[in-house]
Amino acid sequence: MSVNNRIITLLTDFGTSDGYIGAMKGVILSINPNAIVVDISHEIQPQNIQQAAYVLDTVHPYYPESTIHVVVVDPGVGTERQAVMLKTPGAFFIAPDNGVLSPVVKDRVETIAITNPDYWLSQVSTTFHGRDIFAPVAAHLSLGISPDRFGEIISSLVTLANPQPEIEPNGTVIGQVIHIDHFGNLITNIKSDDLPQIDFFIAIKSHVINRLSSSYAEGDELLALVGSNGYLEIGVRYGDAAVYLGAECGERVDIIANSKHRHTLT
Amino acid sequence: MSVNNRIITLLTDFGTSDGYIGAMKGVILSINPNAIVVDISHEIQPQNIQQAAYVLDTVHPYYPESTIHVVVVDPGVGTERQAVMLKTPGAFFIAPDNGVLSPVVKDRVETIAITNPDYWLSQVSTTFHGRDIFAPVAAHLSLGISPDRFGEIISSLVTLANPQPEIEPNGTVIGQVIHIDHFGNLITNIKSDDLPQIDFFIAIKSHVINRLSSSYAEGDELLALVGSNGYLEIGVRYGDAAVYLGAECGERVDIIANSKHRHTLT
Amino acid sequence: MSVNNRIITLLTDFGTSDGYIGAMKGVILSINPNAIVVDISHEIQPQNIQQAAYVLDTVHPYYPESTIHVVVVDPGVGTERQAVMLKTPGAFFIAPDNGVLSPVVKDRVETIAITNPDYWLSQVSTTFHGRDIFAPVAAHLSLGISPDRFGEIISSLVTLANPQPEIEPNGTVIGQVIHIDHFGNLITNIKSDDLPQIDFFIAIKSHVINRLSSSYAEGDELLALVGSNGYLEIGVRYGDAAVYLGAECGERVDIIANSKHRHTLT
Repeated sequence: MSVNNRIITLLTDFGTSDGYIGAMKGVILSINPNAIVVDISHEIQPQNIQQAAYVLDTVHPYYPESTIHVVVVDPGVGTERQAVMLKTPGAFFIAPDNGVLSPVVKDRVETIAITNPDYWLSQVSTTFHGRDIFAPVAAHLSLGISPDRFGEIISSLVTLANPQPEIEPNGTVIGQVIHIDHFGNLITNIKSDDLPQIDFFIAIKSHVINRLSSSYAEGDELLALVGSNGYLEIGVRYGDAAVYLGAECGERVDIIANSKHRHTLT
Repeated sequence: MSVNNRIITLLTDFGTSDGYIGAMKGVILSINPNAIVVDISHEIQPQNIQQAAYVLDTVHPYYPESTIHVVVVDPGVGTERQAVMLKTPGAFFIAPDNGVLSPVVKDRVETIAITNPDYWLSQVSTTFHGRDIFAPVAAHLSLGISPDRFGEIISSLVTLANPQPEIEPNGTVIGQVIHIDHFGNLITNIKSDDLPQIDFFIAIKSHVINRLSSSYAEGDELLALVGSNGYLEIGVRYGDAAVYLGAECGERVDIIANSKHRHTLT
Repeated sequence: MSVNNRIITLLTDFGTSDGYIGAMKGVILSINPNAIVVDISHEIQPQNIQQAAYVLDTVHPYYPESTIHVVVVDPGVGTERQAVMLKTPGAFFIAPDNGVLSPVVKDRVETIAITNPDYWLSQVSTTFHGRDIFAPVAAHLSLGISPDRFGEIISSLVTLANPQPEIEPNGTVIGQVIHIDHFGNLITNIKSDDLPQIDFFIAIKSHVINRLSSSYAEGDELLALVGSNGYLEIGVRYGDAAVYLGAECGERVDIIANSKHRHTLT
């Protein structure tokens, strides 16, 4: 086992005002006192699987090889939904099989249904598998237990319908806001590769943005830029774009090729 | 000293927007650079000793032997209230003597009044004993200093009046909401053992719940279940029961034996 | 390299609902798996450099020698503002050069402009230098890389105009609220040394406080005391002074020598 295997990250919607996260960490440290437990976030909106998948997608590539990522956003806890372990070339992922691992499904080299109670707490509640199943499984995995000991290999997994931008015949790209960050920046599902090669403007909620800025401090009050994860973002200089625009997740964003302006240029 | 002794947990009402927790961790790591500091929660409502006691109760059993739990919800800081150290067979607890350790008082094998300034910071403020007394005492304890070095053995401790459910002559159990979690689930003081053996219904704020669900995803919109800590909880499927019912801590919950329904059954 | 060098603290305005902090920790642990990453706070108000400087000032003295403090409150990210590394006799500080390190500038023994991309991520975004520059630089520094390898030595730094209390000819001290903590306590820029030697009263928002309390639990409802960082604080017993007074940062606080009372005494 690599030394990096000691790192276990936690991404949940449990908040930090109860003892839920504290109990999970106690379970992990009871099984592997040398585990390094890292909080990704516990402020995912309750039951928001899509948001957790987005955050996981932006974070996991920055972790060392063989890191164990535990994601518990689990509205179906206690029902028939399976618990799963995914192995990719770079990491392990442990989560309910509800689509929250969608960003890494394409990279998986092995998938296990977590069915072997030998690695769970002896008493399993119906409402807190984070403490009773996911935490102890992650801790045992970090001790070097082989993935196939936790259950049988499976092939199919629940995946989320990941909304992709649409391209109209006239070249307009229609995307949407998929995440609003702590600063109120609106992160869209439009990647820099989706942007037209020619001059364009961006339309959101009857506002128009005429150019891409290179930082949040540059440009007009309302601005657009390609953010740190490669997606088009709408921001407000030293302000909160979600409040400024009254925008929410799902808000439509149009990228419109500026044929008139282009004509002027040629 | 056991290696598990390196784990020091922190449970406070300090929030995370100031430097209070950061200062406590600095003090601990200055004394024992090998300490593993784990945050339980810093989002206890300001001065809410009862809530901190509840969270401690749900978390400490999941920690390895000899873990040091530091609880600082301390409205009386700087007054005559004592600082105490409790030793139980499984752990150490360090806190102000204001009832916040009530859940573990019954298990104590030794109680020390923390009076020896040799293990405090050299300058002690009147308002932040978390940093100046509790943190350094925990760090020295984690280095293997014997508990009796921190002060004299005492016998009596402040304990909270822990509200127990009442059972009426007709068998009705009257309990109350003792905690509202991050999801808005209402956790009551009614344990599964307190529930009648016969058919019953649950009444809260003029709503009636006819059966126990086995998970938050199963049952009607408003549902009840025995939660992960063994207490009866009221929840709302994919929603927030506290908001749905307009309920707060202290809200009355009745468990009423359903004699009529029972008659039908026999 | 001292073992204490493994400690890297993070102080940011990134919040904890996104993956920003999780990505920074992944970068650090990928470079130095033995780093001990400690969160100071991620709840600094967005872009509030003054608040971050205040929190840093109250926390850093409690950390072991050679701790590496990373402060990322960075409204100018992606612009011409420099990234800097400060060495003091006791610690290292890594931050944008926007004044956030003002509290430690007077102690510096070496200042480096962080310009050498050898120690950055290979791809640097224009919006998230916390992940792409500050985190990897801190991690490499914690491995023992010499400060002068990260860039050239510079002499001048941006510093904040730190508001000092004014003393009127009649002895009245005019200060202001510089921080409001999680409990709603109003922390002023008036140090205990600034207080008159003679009897005085404190005036804020047409309220008068006649004496200093020694704890938050002692005194009238509205009270004043010298807090744990040596500054005069205005509090409310078991309550929130910011809400009680409707006060915000910048609020004026007057310390008025009570000549009449003094006359009575002599």
